Amino acid sequence: MNIEMIRAAAERIRGHVVETPLLRSAFLDRVAGRRVWIKPECLQHTGSFKYRGGRAAVSALSDETRRRGVIAYSSGNHAQGVALAASEFGTPSVIVMPSDAPKMKIDNTRALGGEVVLYDRSTEDRDAIGSEIATARGLTLIRPFDEPEVIAGQGTAGLEIARQAAAAGIEKADVLVCCGGGGFASGIALALEAEAPGLRMRPVEPENFDDMIRSLAAGEIRRNATLTGSICDAIISPEPGQITFPILQRLAGPGIVVTDAEALHAVAHLFSRLKLVAEPGGAVAVAAALFHADEIAGEDVIVTISGGNVDPDVFITALSRYTV
Amino acid sequence: MNIEMIRAAAERIRGHVVETPLLRSAFLDRVAGRRVWIKPECLQHTGSFKYRGGRAAVSALSDETRRRGVIAYSSGNHAQGVALAASEFGTPSVIVMPSDAPKMKIDNTRALGGEVVLYDRSTEDRDAIGSEIATARGLTLIRPFDEPEVIAGQGTAGLEIARQAAAAGIEKADVLVCCGGGGFASGIALALEAEAPGLRMRPVEPENFDDMIRSLAAGEIRRNATLTGSICDAIISPEPGQITFPILQRLAGPGIVVTDAEALHAVAHLFSRLKLVAEPGGAVAVAAALFHADEIAGEDVIVTISGGNVDPDVFITALSRYTV
Repeated sequence: MNIEMIRAAAERIRGHVVETPLLRSAFLDRVAGRRVWIKPECLQHTGSFKYRGGRAAVSALSDETRRRGVIAYSSGNHAQGVALAASEFGTPSVIVMPSDAPKMKIDNTRALGGEVVLYDRSTEDRDAIGSEIATARGLTLIRPFDEPEVIAGQGTAGLEIARQAAAAGIEKADVLVCCGGGGFASGIALALEAEAPGLRMRPVEPENFDDMIRSLAAGEIRRNATLTGSICDAIISPEPGQITFPILQRLAGPGIVVTDAEALHAVAHLFSRLKLVAEPGGAVAVAAALFHADEIAGEDVIVTISGGNVDPDVFITALSRYTV
Repeated sequence: MNIEMIRAAAERIRGHVVETPLLRSAFLDRVAGRRVWIKPECLQHTGSFKYRGGRAAVSALSDETRRRGVIAYSSGNHAQGVALAASEFGTPSVIVMPSDAPKMKIDNTRALGGEVVLYDRSTEDRDAIGSEIATARGLTLIRPFDEPEVIAGQGTAGLEIARQAAAAGIEKADVLVCCGGGGFASGIALALEAEAPGLRMRPVEPENFDDMIRSLAAGEIRRNATLTGSICDAIISPEPGQITFPILQRLAGPGIVVTDAEALHAVAHLFSRLKLVAEPGGAVAVAAALFHADEIAGEDVIVTISGGNVDPDVFITALSRYTV
């Protein structure tokens, strides 16, 4: 896993991914007490950065392998990213999802061309089901984060940040990244190391689901105690990856933990101030910039929004609860 | 008013305006029956394209004139665009607003550096008040649309569309533009005439407030019967401008009229599919692409979103009423 893979991924996906702009608002600057530069990956195809990794991984396969198809386990953003990327290549994709996943996510994944295979979380073994289908049909598994080509794809957002920050005259700043299994965070960290050494990647996680930040502090992988109960579900994963964790041990700055309430409040700010729809998990880094300003130094901070696939009910809750 | 003024405005405002991307969604394509390319000016500074015209107009003044300050009449997006542009130059700005304007818009205009002067719609004469202040303080009036440098600024969005369409390989398409007084529409039409003659600007207006489309049909300026009662308030103006109307007589393709319900439905689509916050008036062109497909020809359609300054209540109504 190295910068050359990220550069190669950027070449392969150029013209297919949205080069998301860096956006600013004087109002957000005032709340944060510094200049806030927002990288809105909610505007990426399928509504999250996951399309970058999906497209990078599918495009890295040999023609022969790609023709047989790909498989992914996901109830969320990775599912849609892989399904769309596969469709664009005319590649079959099987997405294994729990049968109690939100109907809209199942429908969207199908609409993007994914063949959805449902399993019962309480009685069936996801890996056994997936593995049987993969073997029978010769499908290639695309893991959500612990997969070099996926990390390379996510890292292309870091190359864009490096270029955009240079154009804006930012030489030194923290880059706050919403962190689940660490694919987005480690890809961006590697890109910044090579292209913008004055920029430092710092992971942000929701309270009680800060496995990466606790693991980095402990120097070894720690699991989350539970995987449900956070409104930031889009970025919850059981534990850091075997590939992502060592990269972040080497490159990550101190992590920041935010509450669900702060994430929702950030969603309302992004609605009012930047006209962006963020999912709560996608807004944790913005929440860190706005409400944990004392944990950040410098005149500029760069902040990712990882995704915007939020149910209307949750979004309405954010707007009703927080007047911005 | 000519293309050279638009090119000059683009030079002056470069690096200050957001170059908004062209965004797509396979889901919107399906509803529209063709490829839909969205130019989201809700992501522009202050949440609407009006900042382009404000910045272009303020930057066109001589140092001496600019030092004295500017004045604008507006309860909406033009107010914020002018206030921010003036602040960036250290120029005083007076914004004359009705005292019953939404408190949030008054607060935002002040926060952006505007000196807000309130008047009572029922007992006071806005023009008399503004004119007295302007004369006493030597302020330059910046009209919302019937002002060459403002039209030039709005036209810079058209230059971007021409460039982005060429990069996407689109040679021939309609460009649907949300139309009030016609500043945005005429600026874009002039830019396309010069830079992308295969692209044709078509105005879109809300039902019962289609003064521009009726005027174009009649061959002379027609007023709206009323100015209140539309949810698309952001793009309602009394009648076409003296400068904008002849430009559109020469260059506009057939207009499209949409209902308030269609505009709200488009707001919900933009939330779900592109993670964008649009105001109903800002979504009329998207509504035309989605729900008036039979009035459009060709495989591609380019669509502007003019702004995203929507009250949470209205946005919640859109999400509650339309499941997308």
